Amino acid sequence: MPLVRISLIEGKSAEFRRKVGDVVHQAMVVAINCPPQDRFQLITEHTKDNFLCAPEYLGIPHTDDLIIIQITLNEGRTTELKKALYQGIAEGLNNAVSVSAQDVFISLVEVKKENWSFGNGIAQYAT
Amino acid sequence: MPLVRISLIEGKSAEFRRKVGDVVHQAMVVAINCPPQDRFQLITEHTKDNFLCAPEYLGIPHTDDLIIIQITLNEGRTTELKKALYQGIAEGLNNAVSVSAQDVFISLVEVKKENWSFGNGIAQYAT
Amino acid sequence: MPLVRISLIEGKSAEFRRKVGDVVHQAMVVAINCPPQDRFQLITEHTKDNFLCAPEYLGIPHTDDLIIIQITLNEGRTTELKKALYQGIAEGLNNAVSVSAQDVFISLVEVKKENWSFGNGIAQYAT
Repeated sequence: MPLVRISLIEGKSAEFRRKVGDVVHQAMVVAINCPPQDRFQLITEHTKDNFLCAPEYLGIPHTDDLIIIQITLNEGRTTELKKALYQGIAEGLNNAVSVSAQDVFISLVEVKKENWSFGNGIAQYAT
Repeated sequence: MPLVRISLIEGKSAEFRRKVGDVVHQAMVVAINCPPQDRFQLITEHTKDNFLCAPEYLGIPHTDDLIIIQITLNEGRTTELKKALYQGIAEGLNNAVSVSAQDVFISLVEVKKENWSFGNGIAQYAT
Repeated sequence: MPLVRISLIEGKSAEFRRKVGDVVHQAMVVAINCPPQDRFQLITEHTKDNFLCAPEYLGIPHTDDLIIIQITLNEGRTTELKKALYQGIAEGLNNAVSVSAQDVFISLVEVKKENWSFGNGIAQYAT
């Protein structure tokens, strides 16, 4: 169900990018009970001049390694579950691809369960 | 009003991509009463390694022809209307560009009517 | 907090694109009290055949200079604040890069305050 958009500055290898996708997905499986086969991730590589971010916000510095992750998912997860997801993604990326946890930006967009079709023109989650 | 983001793996012709846009828009006109002139569609072509999807979810296989469509639109459509939209898009794409209905993924993001400006710095839908 | 996606047809200079980002951010600071350091903007340049828009909607013509701006931000701004934001962006772009205010399309997506992590795997806005 989640649709994941991952944005970063160009220059990282395909292996790096795949690992980023793997880590984000695995954190979703562990932290918010996302089914392992429910993986739909789009990665966009930007030139540096199309990736405009302030060097620091809320006391957290950001470098050119910043990864911006926007996840569209079903509404209703508790704040505790969301916190676990953020922690899982940031720690996982730090471990897997040596990106600083400071350089992991996450945005969630919540939608109703009838807002998805996974193929065949059917609303699989609608009741 | 709807803003439509269409994502697919690179390699399809401009004609193919335009037909995808045409079909999605026509389904919105027919199924959810979208005005014919209300068309704003962004297509993004991804390399295969930036388009990370599981080969099967909910028993539906996905191939490299998978088309991911995310539509931001006004809130309030019934589940029945959303189902009609999904069916219209999937059947339409199958007819127009021979993509399997299994390879049509749709995500809806609903927003308030005052969340749009169509030009001139005005909130045209706000009351 | 806001995540800003700016989409336009390719062919504009890096200076033009940076000015667009600057104007959008400045309007957010002025109109909706966005912190100056809270800037996260992704620009995507599309070929013309991947940027499919009707030439006119609601009596407003659109040219190939059309700029589509989608902003994910915290919920709760009043319609008056949103209107001020639209006006600030459209007037600012007209002044800074000579784009017609008719060619400024804005879409807002509102989310809960716990839906953000700005680094370190923490939900900085959650209470």
